[in-house]
Amino acid sequence: MRPSGRAPDEMRAIDIQTGFTRHAEGSVLISFGDTRVLVTASVEEKIPPFLRGKGEGWVTAEYSMLPRATHTRGSREAAKGKQSGRTQEIQRLIGRSLRAVVDMKKLGERQIVLDCDVLQADGGTRTAAISGAWVALRLAVDKLMAEGKITADPIEGRVAAISCGICEGTPVLDLDYDEDSSADADANFVLIEGGKIAEAQATAEGACYDEEGLLRLLRLARIGCDRIFAAQAKAVGR
Amino acid sequence: MRPSGRAPDEMRAIDIQTGFTRHAEGSVLISFGDTRVLVTASVEEKIPPFLRGKGEGWVTAEYSMLPRATHTRGSREAAKGKQSGRTQEIQRLIGRSLRAVVDMKKLGERQIVLDCDVLQADGGTRTAAISGAWVALRLAVDKLMAEGKITADPIEGRVAAISCGICEGTPVLDLDYDEDSSADADANFVLIEGGKIAEAQATAEGACYDEEGLLRLLRLARIGCDRIFAAQAKAVGR
Amino acid sequence: MRPSGRAPDEMRAIDIQTGFTRHAEGSVLISFGDTRVLVTASVEEKIPPFLRGKGEGWVTAEYSMLPRATHTRGSREAAKGKQSGRTQEIQRLIGRSLRAVVDMKKLGERQIVLDCDVLQADGGTRTAAISGAWVALRLAVDKLMAEGKITADPIEGRVAAISCGICEGTPVLDLDYDEDSSADADANFVLIEGGKIAEAQATAEGACYDEEGLLRLLRLARIGCDRIFAAQAKAVGR
Amino acid sequence: MRPSGRAPDEMRAIDIQTGFTRHAEGSVLISFGDTRVLVTASVEEKIPPFLRGKGEGWVTAEYSMLPRATHTRGSREAAKGKQSGRTQEIQRLIGRSLRAVVDMKKLGERQIVLDCDVLQADGGTRTAAISGAWVALRLAVDKLMAEGKITADPIEGRVAAISCGICEGTPVLDLDYDEDSSADADANFVLIEGGKIAEAQATAEGACYDEEGLLRLLRLARIGCDRIFAAQAKAVGR
Amino acid sequence: MRPSGRAPDEMRAIDIQTGFTRHAEGSVLISFGDTRVLVTASVEEKIPPFLRGKGEGWVTAEYSMLPRATHTRGSREAAKGKQSGRTQEIQRLIGRSLRAVVDMKKLGERQIVLDCDVLQADGGTRTAAISGAWVALRLAVDKLMAEGKITADPIEGRVAAISCGICEGTPVLDLDYDEDSSADADANFVLIEGGKIAEAQATAEGACYDEEGLLRLLRLARIGCDRIFAAQAKAVGR
Amino acid sequence: MRPSGRAPDEMRAIDIQTGFTRHAEGSVLISFGDTRVLVTASVEEKIPPFLRGKGEGWVTAEYSMLPRATHTRGSREAAKGKQSGRTQEIQRLIGRSLRAVVDMKKLGERQIVLDCDVLQADGGTRTAAISGAWVALRLAVDKLMAEGKITADPIEGRVAAISCGICEGTPVLDLDYDEDSSADADANFVLIEGGKIAEAQATAEGACYDEEGLLRLLRLARIGCDRIFAAQAKAVGR
Repeated sequence: MRPSGRAPDEMRAIDIQTGFTRHAEGSVLISFGDTRVLVTASVEEKIPPFLRGKGEGWVTAEYSMLPRATHTRGSREAAKGKQSGRTQEIQRLIGRSLRAVVDMKKLGERQIVLDCDVLQADGGTRTAAISGAWVALRLAVDKLMAEGKITADPIEGRVAAISCGICEGTPVLDLDYDEDSSADADANFVLIEGGKIAEAQATAEGACYDEEGLLRLLRLARIGCDRIFAAQAKAVGR
Repeated sequence: MRPSGRAPDEMRAIDIQTGFTRHAEGSVLISFGDTRVLVTASVEEKIPPFLRGKGEGWVTAEYSMLPRATHTRGSREAAKGKQSGRTQEIQRLIGRSLRAVVDMKKLGERQIVLDCDVLQADGGTRTAAISGAWVALRLAVDKLMAEGKITADPIEGRVAAISCGICEGTPVLDLDYDEDSSADADANFVLIEGGKIAEAQATAEGACYDEEGLLRLLRLARIGCDRIFAAQAKAVGR
Repeated sequence: MRPSGRAPDEMRAIDIQTGFTRHAEGSVLISFGDTRVLVTASVEEKIPPFLRGKGEGWVTAEYSMLPRATHTRGSREAAKGKQSGRTQEIQRLIGRSLRAVVDMKKLGERQIVLDCDVLQADGGTRTAAISGAWVALRLAVDKLMAEGKITADPIEGRVAAISCGICEGTPVLDLDYDEDSSADADANFVLIEGGKIAEAQATAEGACYDEEGLLRLLRLARIGCDRIFAAQAKAVGR
Repeated sequence: MRPSGRAPDEMRAIDIQTGFTRHAEGSVLISFGDTRVLVTASVEEKIPPFLRGKGEGWVTAEYSMLPRATHTRGSREAAKGKQSGRTQEIQRLIGRSLRAVVDMKKLGERQIVLDCDVLQADGGTRTAAISGAWVALRLAVDKLMAEGKITADPIEGRVAAISCGICEGTPVLDLDYDEDSSADADANFVLIEGGKIAEAQATAEGACYDEEGLLRLLRLARIGCDRIFAAQAKAVGR
Repeated sequence: MRPSGRAPDEMRAIDIQTGFTRHAEGSVLISFGDTRVLVTASVEEKIPPFLRGKGEGWVTAEYSMLPRATHTRGSREAAKGKQSGRTQEIQRLIGRSLRAVVDMKKLGERQIVLDCDVLQADGGTRTAAISGAWVALRLAVDKLMAEGKITADPIEGRVAAISCGICEGTPVLDLDYDEDSSADADANFVLIEGGKIAEAQATAEGACYDEEGLLRLLRLARIGCDRIFAAQAKAVGR
Repeated sequence: MRPSGRAPDEMRAIDIQTGFTRHAEGSVLISFGDTRVLVTASVEEKIPPFLRGKGEGWVTAEYSMLPRATHTRGSREAAKGKQSGRTQEIQRLIGRSLRAVVDMKKLGERQIVLDCDVLQADGGTRTAAISGAWVALRLAVDKLMAEGKITADPIEGRVAAISCGICEGTPVLDLDYDEDSSADADANFVLIEGGKIAEAQATAEGACYDEEGLLRLLRLARIGCDRIFAAQAKAVGR
């Protein structure tokens, strides 16, 4: 029995609220149970130096956790003067995941920045961020298309992410903080609608796992991502 | 006529939602119109080095603006590796304002950190932060008292803050972003319920002002703070 | 009775020595009693990025305290690798105060940087810095005009600043360190010759104050600034 | 045909030179073809703060690339004043991988730091670093046991790592720089001798992959790690 | 003929004003012609960690140049967030030079910090700093002895420093900025009263030099330091 | 008798291995006994801002010590976020020494960066770095000349460096770590083939020295540098 009483393949409630803030071109508050992440997509009519003159755009992400998103207060990275290795690892993953479904030529010479700020954390913040970022990106691109700045849709498909893990020998889906901190192995999958994999990361924490374990985690991730794809579709109205 | 159509002494709608996040000892989402600030109060059973051994507590604050809280995206301070002068000035003001109503002996050897994160900005973020911080602090202290960790209430009164300014010659209350960026003078008042002043800051932007102007701004601030005191009372249920 | 034996409305001796160093376009050593600040004005034929192409100039300030300007040695900000919140707050105030009397169009596309370095501190360093910075700025602008680089005088008037406070219930003028560290309320006023106010900041330290207190502090500030305006006039020879 | 002429499941030459430097408790120069990493293991009789009083040790890693390890010179992180996200991600992975085979209770209250400095890079630096770090760790632990500081061996098994990828549709083992920069997918596996998995990371670069692709990469990794385990055994003489 | 009209072995006027600021245990404004450095000596009843429990004291120095000490304004190190290599090199030299004449056992477990802030620069700032620092140190130690905190004098002799250089083939003493920026070789000598050498640094700028050149520079330095020793003696009254 | 059994004027074995890494335009592993430094020369077709438009090139250096190059592990500068004063002082010396033999006009508008990374330290790392850097620079310039990018050889002669010191009253050549940490005086000389001096630095550590001591150190340095010039000649084949 999981601490939350959920079945091994049961996700927490997913909620995606669009338009949570009003200035950004795309704005989403996504919840996986008690994990809540505010994602905004900002369109900037400039690109990073390494892309200049190539006729291509860029999609990147930044991630942060509010100091008291967690059980005990963490120090504020802006006050410490640097981002932790964990923060940088996560924001690199988010950017890479979104770029997997964007045609940079069609986006044109502009950059979309996805800011993922965790308001409340209960496990799975990076996967909620990726899943929400796709919605914010979709909204921002829709706006660019409506304004006639982009003609062909640069988004090639949906992308979603979910965590899984092996807890007391059982593979389970969508770990909350309690499970996450005691899991033997902890995995994050980023999947593309239709079945392809954009990223798989599976880490042994307490006990190493085998090929069968990896496959069972991947199968759980497919169940979870299908639910997220449906929620994304509903949020963007198609 | 103000851009928003408000009367000179008319505030924007105030909304205070308590318990917006669940981990913090006190958590508040406060809105002054479109300005929305998430404030959490975190109780830490430790004190800063300069207070050790004095039998006193401390109240401090940190402030940040999410990168896309504003019309155009600002850079993330954690990524830049330092907090701006504006951020530091504001968080020092917030901490000082709250300390004006707290008896540090009664608080005991513990620290309460008020994290003020602006989710959406439309002028007056520092005054909304102070006003919301009082509610978060009140909730956290209530919890400490309910747990028996504090016996005598260390909070000596309510504190609220509001901005005023002189726009095209007319003193007006609670400036939004449009007014703020074109005002001749811009003031922030931190008032204590009952009429005392904790902090007055009035800055000429385009045109210097005179004593009569300063007094008219202070009178508007009293009107605004009375409305905030009422909203605070309602939010904490007394 | 004040610790220094001064009357409540009595300032410390003001001394303004021009040409204290020789490289800067304007150089001043200003003393308010034992508080001594070296201010230099540097003319730079470049402007900050946000002003490019607008045909306007800029005036900005930097502030620092030598490590042993104070009773006990403070750490050197350059060695720590960052400026404190206090330093940033003060240098923002100095720049803003001077800009209140400068017509940026007449200054033309150049920047004047006011470096305020406190050689010895005994309270009131920021107000001495502002008052001295006006003299350094005046000297630098006179030089630009003598060289024919500027035709119309961009300085619209004098600006001076002074601290006041409420000590044991009595409003007093020009606090030294002893008074400053024990005052119930502490205020800084930046005034324009002729009576207008550029900035008013009044902070409760030990006890909140009322409107009457604020006004009495302002009236003391007028007395003090009139004395500073006279000293400034004498220093620049008109 | 691979650019190097290797078969899809063919590794580059592995070379492990122990005792490359003489001060460290363990020192190894490991080569995977032209990729050469110097790994030292330093025993420190102190532990990080979060472990104090638990009777456990710690194993951690730091990673760096010499500026001209690569085709074009990269900037030196010490000169820039911060480690890149990539560097932090890699050193976190190395530390985690080694901790997967160490019993921290048996290690006792001491820390072993694995410094992995890339002298020459040609793809696969992180996997060479992990594979070499195991040897350096083994040597350092052997020394601690020979000195009688540790009685029971804290190392529970061998760990090795290898990169694989999908290049022009074909899964291949041990990518060099040419392949790495053009691969459709890029994976790193950290395996434990005996078959268990400590970490799997597979990232789509140009094209997403499917479950079958993931499994084929894992099988290649097993082939590669078996060769590394043999080289490790030979290097440590058992 | 030198640009200043001085003879090759002629120093600029030396002036040492003690008690320039009042808080420090020792305070000196030293001038070598137009080069003016404010040096304060601060006694701290604590020592750096590496000396704890050894019964010894420490002498260290910090150096900084005010932004407009020079012909054109330099950026402020505190604002840039780091000290330049030049600054660090100079402050290490100053500390080392003073430590050459102090018996750390006799100083006892306390630290003396010498802050050297250049108010105006015209060549030779580091040598003026060292020469002035000896006076500030002497004053601070005299105070410690007068207070009975130290019984045996820890200062074993005088130390002074001077720059020399080879300009258009001729060795000259005490370079000003004009000479310094065009010299073929540039040297700094730190000498102990009585003839010993604490530090010799001679750098070719435009043309390498030979042994004879080095010796002629050293002989000039002896002439210069003898004049400084006399000025130091007069400044401290013995 | 020296701890190593060497005669006072006896150097340690010098070894210069060219082509140690393959990407850099020049690459050298130089050993002075157990001190081993990897030096690479990188040609960059860009110059620092202060040289733009002058038709000249630049030669600069960076220096670092691997954390466990030493007896006990030092912290990694990239992790601490800043380079130590010692590191900056050394890399400034290396760059200056190499520039002493390069005609920047003949080099043309390009920069050569010499990265000196100490793999193992046993005293004399900066002098080994300078001596090896000359070889790396020579190789890189030869490559530029072979490619026809440079026509006239910009290198005007050989430069080498060696440390000397006074140990228990005796001047000795090429100090190892044991001698270096106990020497009374410690000197580094940078000499040009043919006899000229590019840099002389002699520092008293435990006891000040006299003119005769300085000259005896310089004579030892000549002996040492002659051996290094021979090794350099052999390494570059002429």
